[in-house]
Amino acid sequence: MKWWGWGDPSVPADLPPHALDFLQAELGVSGARRPPVSIEDVRLAEPSLPRKAQPKLALAVGGEWVRDDRLDRVTHAAGKGYPDLVRLRAGDATGAPDAVVYPADAAEVRAVLDACGSEGVAVVPFGGGTSVVGGVEPTRNGFEGVISLDLARMAKLEGVDDVSLTADFGPGLRGPQVEEALGQWGLTLGHFPQSFEYATVGGWVATRSAGQASTGYGTIEKLVCGLRCVTPSGEIDLPALPATAAGPSLRQLLVGSEGVLGVITRATLKVRAKPEERRYEAWMFRSFEDGAEAFRKLEQGGVAPDVARLSDQAETRLSLALTGQGSLKQRAGLRYVRMRGYDGGCIAVLGFEGDRTGVARRTGLATRVMRRTGGLALGAGPGRAWERGRYAGPYLRDALLDHGVMAETLETAHEWSHLMDLYRAVGTAIEGALAARGTPPLVMCHISHLYPSGASLYFTFLARQEADAELDQWRAAKVAASDAIAQAGATITHHHAIGRDHAPWMRAEIGDLGLAALHSVKDRLDPAGIMNPGKLFPQQP
Amino acid sequence: MKWWGWGDPSVPADLPPHALDFLQAELGVSGARRPPVSIEDVRLAEPSLPRKAQPKLALAVGGEWVRDDRLDRVTHAAGKGYPDLVRLRAGDATGAPDAVVYPADAAEVRAVLDACGSEGVAVVPFGGGTSVVGGVEPTRNGFEGVISLDLARMAKLEGVDDVSLTADFGPGLRGPQVEEALGQWGLTLGHFPQSFEYATVGGWVATRSAGQASTGYGTIEKLVCGLRCVTPSGEIDLPALPATAAGPSLRQLLVGSEGVLGVITRATLKVRAKPEERRYEAWMFRSFEDGAEAFRKLEQGGVAPDVARLSDQAETRLSLALTGQGSLKQRAGLRYVRMRGYDGGCIAVLGFEGDRTGVARRTGLATRVMRRTGGLALGAGPGRAWERGRYAGPYLRDALLDHGVMAETLETAHEWSHLMDLYRAVGTAIEGALAARGTPPLVMCHISHLYPSGASLYFTFLARQEADAELDQWRAAKVAASDAIAQAGATITHHHAIGRDHAPWMRAEIGDLGLAALHSVKDRLDPAGIMNPGKLFPQQP
Repeated sequence: MKWWGWGDPSVPADLPPHALDFLQAELGVSGARRPPVSIEDVRLAEPSLPRKAQPKLALAVGGEWVRDDRLDRVTHAAGKGYPDLVRLRAGDATGAPDAVVYPADAAEVRAVLDACGSEGVAVVPFGGGTSVVGGVEPTRNGFEGVISLDLARMAKLEGVDDVSLTADFGPGLRGPQVEEALGQWGLTLGHFPQSFEYATVGGWVATRSAGQASTGYGTIEKLVCGLRCVTPSGEIDLPALPATAAGPSLRQLLVGSEGVLGVITRATLKVRAKPEERRYEAWMFRSFEDGAEAFRKLEQGGVAPDVARLSDQAETRLSLALTGQGSLKQRAGLRYVRMRGYDGGCIAVLGFEGDRTGVARRTGLATRVMRRTGGLALGAGPGRAWERGRYAGPYLRDALLDHGVMAETLETAHEWSHLMDLYRAVGTAIEGALAARGTPPLVMCHISHLYPSGASLYFTFLARQEADAELDQWRAAKVAASDAIAQAGATITHHHAIGRDHAPWMRAEIGDLGLAALHSVKDRLDPAGIMNPGKLFPQQP
Repeated sequence: MKWWGWGDPSVPADLPPHALDFLQAELGVSGARRPPVSIEDVRLAEPSLPRKAQPKLALAVGGEWVRDDRLDRVTHAAGKGYPDLVRLRAGDATGAPDAVVYPADAAEVRAVLDACGSEGVAVVPFGGGTSVVGGVEPTRNGFEGVISLDLARMAKLEGVDDVSLTADFGPGLRGPQVEEALGQWGLTLGHFPQSFEYATVGGWVATRSAGQASTGYGTIEKLVCGLRCVTPSGEIDLPALPATAAGPSLRQLLVGSEGVLGVITRATLKVRAKPEERRYEAWMFRSFEDGAEAFRKLEQGGVAPDVARLSDQAETRLSLALTGQGSLKQRAGLRYVRMRGYDGGCIAVLGFEGDRTGVARRTGLATRVMRRTGGLALGAGPGRAWERGRYAGPYLRDALLDHGVMAETLETAHEWSHLMDLYRAVGTAIEGALAARGTPPLVMCHISHLYPSGASLYFTFLARQEADAELDQWRAAKVAASDAIAQAGATITHHHAIGRDHAPWMRAEIGDLGLAALHSVKDRLDPAGIMNPGKLFPQQP
């Protein structure tokens, strides 16, 4: 993974010329390139672990697995959020961890936590490092040292129960490793977030991840049957159970704990038969409201697809601009859309997975609802195009940053009855905040996860970067959007988690006493406070 | 509700003569009646609230809502578990609360908790009082006094969002009130536990209740979108959200909290359109294993019914014995079963609810799976018979107790791959424990809640009561069964909750550190420990 961006550095990622033209016209970017500095020019502080920490850590995991070379430290200095990339591209890795430690198993994790507890070293669990909310930032918070605890060596599929359809995963398994290992059993986890190529099982569980197919397969919290978590105070090992009424849910207390309570060292997740067929189709709606109403009817009627995604007008327009509308087929498609009066409308993608007869049956049922609610069928072509590009977002962001474009995303969820008000409020807040700085943005949104009572909204916004004030600019937009979300009574995060960036809005979400209740668990499991400090909990007012 | 049993005292409940004959033959009961004592003969201690508690409580809720008359105290002296009924029928209500307090709203609940906190009075939240695990027993645990906090006055449907399909409920609403209020909106909660007629929304949420149709509608934990909980340290108010990734789930920490953290004063739950049609069908399997395998295929294939219930051989045999096999139609049915080689097999009930075309489609899909897995269709008659008698269990228990028969139930859940081993282990444990006491039991079981990774097992056992050693006899069976469950790595409770009776097995279920984590929340929200003491947490070893 590029230390300054996303994906394999050898894979070229640039914008096609027509996309660049569009961005120049819409955002007023100059066209000048703003490349990242070279790795040699990245600023790093000297590692400064307390004296006895290094030998203790070496004892815990073996000397070769305690690393403080430049590349290891820089790649663990931040996650992949926009402010992280802005700082890294500018050569600022001064927040890098003192060392990166790679444990081989739960016993070694325990030994590392013991060493860090006794030496006053903060511990930041690190899976794929794909957090976009600062969840893996090595915050010291008053400790003398900080390590990044990289779980890459704990990447084994530990067991499969193909009768109960569950599997035991090590936390360090990345998405492709998960699917490859399960594929040999004819199974799938069905968890495909945009970060799929790098993100890990442990990270998914620790952050309440949702995949693109989670409308069908369920978000990770619904897939967790059991888990094991090593904390500074010992271990909690919850067996895989289909259900239990034995008091408050400890499973759901550890899911989403973002490394502040301990390290997830095993997760037992539900799996499914690998689908015989995947069918992706596109539809058009005259308005975002119409499309949202169709999605609500699908979901509440029990006939929702596994992937359901509805872009608003702006996102639809931009995706057409990026693909260029160049081919004959595309132009014919656009003519058809215009002829039917859907010009300037909203595109939706519906994906069905499963056995052939099931897919055919479900597609048929959904099609009836889509037609009745004003949808225009566009066929499989644009659906497949979306599927091909489903992991492209983060690559594209690097190209945008190269061209001086700010590209950020944020997400929330609310009940159906409040969704359109929320949509307008957040969009208006982002537009207002950035227009006030002289960088009017393009704000886009899609609905991508359906629930009987509501749905998620996922916003993307682009603006010309304010040179030398990139972080202030970002913060202005982030604060405006987050305040609007809190004001609307929606959740500050549907699947990006809290980390560093959302912590100030936790109080609005669960209240002072809710925070105190969670903190009491933190104090019990991590009395020294070494686990991922500065994350999840807001600073005391 | 009868103070000594279940249901309206004016409704006669007795066993038909053939059922009595069967029990005499199978269990060796004498036929002599063992009626409960009369209310005047029930032993009660004098109420002994601390001096200032009474006026403070009167200030909090109004004098007329602080009651200590005989009937109020006796009806709040215990839940409806077997040991509770044994004690009450024998006239022992010495554990009754000092007073029963009826708050009108959340503010009054808060005032009551304040008064009790300052005066050292334990508080036992009380919904329908239907706990079968001692969850509402007014345990003093060292406090000078104990009150039962009856939420019957907080029984309002507070709001309906028929776009998002959610509704706000006061905690005191009983099942029939819930369905009546929602019925006016054309909606249903779909939550029908056997205790439906008396149990309340607050109780369901506090105990992780599951209804008979929860395979389709979801257990209560899946229906909770938001809730409000008043604790001695203040209030936690979680808005209704379809999903959130904002850290550990506080919602799922309060769901199942059994009154030990605070009082649930509002729950926002998912609701659905009232079904146009309910279709209940019966099937026969040659063995419990065959039936379980069919249920697994239904659930994992995504075609499970809303109600799925499979009785083992013993339960099938007993239910035939209780209905008498007398009518021509029944005898013809039995002949058909015998002819097809299903004699001595296991009966299953499948229930489908929804709109007509949906029910027809789903029934068709399930029927194919049932036939392929060896099921024999028995048609709608026995299915409807089950539906008619779905709330009869607790009434029947009173009749059995009248005749000197011990009747107890317990439940657990496990993954499919362990389910049959668990089934045999628990059955053997109960049989062994009661045979050793000279009262060999009838042990029956059914599967009634399906999940992709497993299912619940619900055991019923009957034995001749040991006169004057009823509680020892019960405890022997309960301990044997619970130890077998823990030994098998299953959950100690699928939907009866922990309360008093299951607390000793909490350590096996979530471990010492898991308990400590939950207790840290208790200590924060209820620092004086007044909330439902003696429940959920095991005594320190």
